[in-house]
Amino acid sequence: MRVAILAHGKFPDRAKTAVGVLRYGDHDVVAVLDREAAGQRVADFGLRAVPDAPIVESMDEVPECDALLIGIAPIGGGFDESWRPDVRTAIERGCDVIAGLHYFLNDDEEFARLADDHGVELRDVRRPPEDLTVAEGVTDGVAAEVVLTVGTDCSVGKMTATMELVEAARERGVDAAAVPTGQTGVLIEGWGIAVDRVVSDFVNGAVERMVREAGDDHDLLVVEGQGSIVHPAYSAVTCGILHGAMADRLVLCHDATRERIHGYEAFELPSVANYVDLYESLATPVHETEVVAGTLNTRDLADDAAAREAVDAFGDAIGGPATDPVRFDADDVLEAVL
Amino acid sequence: MRVAILAHGKFPDRAKTAVGVLRYGDHDVVAVLDREAAGQRVADFGLRAVPDAPIVESMDEVPECDALLIGIAPIGGGFDESWRPDVRTAIERGCDVIAGLHYFLNDDEEFARLADDHGVELRDVRRPPEDLTVAEGVTDGVAAEVVLTVGTDCSVGKMTATMELVEAARERGVDAAAVPTGQTGVLIEGWGIAVDRVVSDFVNGAVERMVREAGDDHDLLVVEGQGSIVHPAYSAVTCGILHGAMADRLVLCHDATRERIHGYEAFELPSVANYVDLYESLATPVHETEVVAGTLNTRDLADDAAAREAVDAFGDAIGGPATDPVRFDADDVLEAVL
Repeated sequence: MRVAILAHGKFPDRAKTAVGVLRYGDHDVVAVLDREAAGQRVADFGLRAVPDAPIVESMDEVPECDALLIGIAPIGGGFDESWRPDVRTAIERGCDVIAGLHYFLNDDEEFARLADDHGVELRDVRRPPEDLTVAEGVTDGVAAEVVLTVGTDCSVGKMTATMELVEAARERGVDAAAVPTGQTGVLIEGWGIAVDRVVSDFVNGAVERMVREAGDDHDLLVVEGQGSIVHPAYSAVTCGILHGAMADRLVLCHDATRERIHGYEAFELPSVANYVDLYESLATPVHETEVVAGTLNTRDLADDAAAREAVDAFGDAIGGPATDPVRFDADDVLEAVL
Repeated sequence: MRVAILAHGKFPDRAKTAVGVLRYGDHDVVAVLDREAAGQRVADFGLRAVPDAPIVESMDEVPECDALLIGIAPIGGGFDESWRPDVRTAIERGCDVIAGLHYFLNDDEEFARLADDHGVELRDVRRPPEDLTVAEGVTDGVAAEVVLTVGTDCSVGKMTATMELVEAARERGVDAAAVPTGQTGVLIEGWGIAVDRVVSDFVNGAVERMVREAGDDHDLLVVEGQGSIVHPAYSAVTCGILHGAMADRLVLCHDATRERIHGYEAFELPSVANYVDLYESLATPVHETEVVAGTLNTRDLADDAAAREAVDAFGDAIGGPATDPVRFDADDVLEAVL
């Protein structure tokens, strides 16, 4: 599928959906829309393991494609009205539009009417199934070993760690699968539930349902975590995933330069050791688990030597192996979760 | 308002909404519908501080009234089809119908059409406001002192503790208000948000919004907690309330005879000391707080002496005053939260 990815004003650092789809999706990305970076190319930003594509100003400059994908997720998940002309043009050109916003394109009168007129599909991947319900507390009955990526904050690399661990496990011949819990993961994997959009009473149940759905078909499941257990806004989702997944092992994800909660700068991050304690002590009354390894996003560190040093210090704080799975490899971390 | 309360097969022990409205609401309850207890009276069950009313088999036997209120909340919040004839009869008799289910009466074609025909209102109190969004992390800016009731499980007395504390504070001349977060609290208080029904990303934000709404008009807010932080199904909601409320003090609520999670008997409750640690250590990175007191539901204990002993042991485990606010008074606990 040939897709254009909308990431106005945010590519690449604040466009994690765009970068995730570029890096892990099997889409053919024909262009990225970012009016602030227009004229440059994806390759100009030196992102590891990301294919190149032109960056353009608007949908008018995009070569032929099958879909426009909204590749940014603003806090609150709203629709930015400045994107409307691009979405309109995409529909008029016969492209499907794929979004993971809290705001549903299908509920937008203009888009729904236009899509109908032009015979294209609006895919709101964040719209939850209608038959969700509360957890039964039986996730631990699945055959697969269950690993959950947990974080010190949003945007520290939980989705990346999830995808890299699954990839590394498959390379080693392990039958592994990702359990996507966020819009980017769902876009990449083509299944899953964006649990931040479900009725709060059903978060644990939505995760339980996914793990049970996949858990007898694979030997290893890596559940994508969300947010952080001490996030002022998103902790409900994090906690529901932690108990719904009933993971056998946890991988703690962190960003090497993060000291305060992103977008909530009044809040300092607790120590890494404190996070380890919190996740373990909170999870264990439902299902005994421990943090066995860590991943560190070292994107903002100057070179491999500095990154290696940071990764080692992070591993020491956790008491297990650590890596930056994008910069280095995931072998030791995989070993710890198997 | 004269109301009938539907509680088929569950009055009084598994009908906490019915009992809550009887005890704390200012409704005039003309009858309770419970086909299994029909012929008895509310007074026969020896519930403390609950007014009497007849228990009848169906809506056909209910004296004149203004509304039928659904007073039970099954796990999952569905609508039990065996209730349909009573709801139908109520509407046909010109009564409003008030419910706090996940299933919305307004979305039921038959009820919506009937209500329209008979000019009555269907009030789904669990339906959240449409403009909710993520928390900003600023709840601690309100003028009032904020207290949150937290629990060791569902149905251990958080709503009761909330109402009793507010009542005791008012009797002492403190300008106090409850912040209702569940369907029963919302029914009793006439405002609030049933946060278990909101989009999970907005739980913390919904609580923040309520606390900010009420926080500058009162000196003391008591936020009604939900579930438990280690509940296999409901922990997401609990965690979101904990961080959204940014409470200055916590009151831990427990049931004297509860050893396993209600409805999830495979899960043992952790120790009281473990709950105190978990709530405090999880809340503190967002807003420093501590468990200062406890309430114990001693309904299933034989007499006041046994209850007093259990309350004292619970207080010792918490390291603060404890009471059963229905059986005894709330003075010492109130003192600790002021």
